[in-house]
Amino acid sequence: MTEQLFRFSTDIRVRNYEVDWQGIVHNANYLLYCEVARLEYLRHLGLKIDMESIKGESKVVLVRNEINYKFPATFNQLLRVYTRISTIKTTSFIFEGMIVDAEKGFQIVENWAYHVWLDGRKNDPMVVPEHFRSVVKQFEGDNVEIINPKI
Amino acid sequence: MTEQLFRFSTDIRVRNYEVDWQGIVHNANYLLYCEVARLEYLRHLGLKIDMESIKGESKVVLVRNEINYKFPATFNQLLRVYTRISTIKTTSFIFEGMIVDAEKGFQIVENWAYHVWLDGRKNDPMVVPEHFRSVVKQFEGDNVEIINPKI
Amino acid sequence: MTEQLFRFSTDIRVRNYEVDWQGIVHNANYLLYCEVARLEYLRHLGLKIDMESIKGESKVVLVRNEINYKFPATFNQLLRVYTRISTIKTTSFIFEGMIVDAEKGFQIVENWAYHVWLDGRKNDPMVVPEHFRSVVKQFEGDNVEIINPKI
Amino acid sequence: MTEQLFRFSTDIRVRNYEVDWQGIVHNANYLLYCEVARLEYLRHLGLKIDMESIKGESKVVLVRNEINYKFPATFNQLLRVYTRISTIKTTSFIFEGMIVDAEKGFQIVENWAYHVWLDGRKNDPMVVPEHFRSVVKQFEGDNVEIINPKI
Repeated sequence: MTEQLFRFSTDIRVRNYEVDWQGIVHNANYLLYCEVARLEYLRHLGLKIDMESIKGESKVVLVRNEINYKFPATFNQLLRVYTRISTIKTTSFIFEGMIVDAEKGFQIVENWAYHVWLDGRKNDPMVVPEHFRSVVKQFEGDNVEIINPKI
Repeated sequence: MTEQLFRFSTDIRVRNYEVDWQGIVHNANYLLYCEVARLEYLRHLGLKIDMESIKGESKVVLVRNEINYKFPATFNQLLRVYTRISTIKTTSFIFEGMIVDAEKGFQIVENWAYHVWLDGRKNDPMVVPEHFRSVVKQFEGDNVEIINPKI
Repeated sequence: MTEQLFRFSTDIRVRNYEVDWQGIVHNANYLLYCEVARLEYLRHLGLKIDMESIKGESKVVLVRNEINYKFPATFNQLLRVYTRISTIKTTSFIFEGMIVDAEKGFQIVENWAYHVWLDGRKNDPMVVPEHFRSVVKQFEGDNVEIINPKI
Repeated sequence: MTEQLFRFSTDIRVRNYEVDWQGIVHNANYLLYCEVARLEYLRHLGLKIDMESIKGESKVVLVRNEINYKFPATFNQLLRVYTRISTIKTTSFIFEGMIVDAEKGFQIVENWAYHVWLDGRKNDPMVVPEHFRSVVKQFEGDNVEIINPKI
């Protein structure tokens, strides 16, 4: 994964309570950092995914996380959390994340978060809405792989 | 605070990620332990305070926490978390908590959590419901100080 | 993944603060549950991996997590967290985890946690110690795939 | 508590996973926010209290927290976390904290965190070092109440 692929990032400074007894950020916290970036990405694109939307007719659920730990982060380190939607399939999409040291650039973790769009009433997978596809496409350009829905 | 005052406790074993870089349980986690015990206490007394109830017409809010840190807890330590409702006033009540080492009995923290009962629609304090008073009174007996509502 | 592969499990009851605004356990918490089970597994096998050992000459680091979310867990649900070491390679090993509803048995998540053994001084991968291999082999029997180190 | 008393603040935006099932920030997280501000305050004053210092000869321990919950914070809200050392006694000092909405200024919580200085070897309270007193005095001026140590 390289920075060139990303058009969005947010900076997060490591807080003391995120560090575990080994003196490094606890492994589960990197998932939290990546999720913070995903929500800011969606807000940046004007795609409201917040508390209101989960009461609506459709919802997005996380079905899989993959994370590679490259180098441990430490207290007070400034992290740059890159995120992008890399792939949109018929009923699902993938968020890629990469955390690097904000000053020196070395990689800390890589993350792939797989999401599925569900019909809010029946909980069946549904086609990713056209509005979502087009907004992401407009922002990411050729960086996002879009697989058109077979309707 | 002494164990004699309490008629309810629950045991919690310290998890690795609750320990901070100093090798001891992070100070905020003791509030979580005390809250776990409070919810189990309420369930034990048949007083349902869960997700459904917060959509109802009245709600209970936490307005103040006091916690004294006596001795730090460490990984894998078995904690006994005592809890009781010590006082019920007109529109509020106090939960006392005490965490001790489950084997050796020495004190780890003491906690006082002040709650207020609110009318769900107007958010005004309301008189603690009679059912709640009587159930707590039945369980705690003379250990709970009940101040009758002036209606 | 099926329960038949596992010889160890620990039960964890979902705590209120582990539930997010959607009313379900936040996705990062499942990693914590699986980690709790791994540490209890190691203790059960007499393999001390605690704060002391990380100051020693070698250490074990987590290099990758994969987690599939099958069904969301909710407040107060009793979870059975299965764990096992499924594979030991030359310098690494894999922990598999599976969380199910303790009463009804349906799957909640599956987890694969990849660990590497490092020389504590040079941080180079080192051969998984023979003692670790043999203890795991004795406990897991044919359920663990052991790839002999090429020394 | 009023903003006029404070000469230091840091801004924190509420993250999604800090919100509980009630849709508001979980009560224990406010302690974390106040602690983040205290560490940044100490760094701002050049008073290094970090991982290195805890291996030193003396240490600072938190012995009591008091927190009043005034108004719940919600997802994405920008919080201004004020902090100051309000009192230095012979062997202890008090950090006051106040969290307000960064834009509208209304109060969210008030916090008092009581710290004691311990001799690292015997764990006995020791006189707060003169360097610490003078640096805080220089920054806070008349806002800090200093009770000279009786040596």
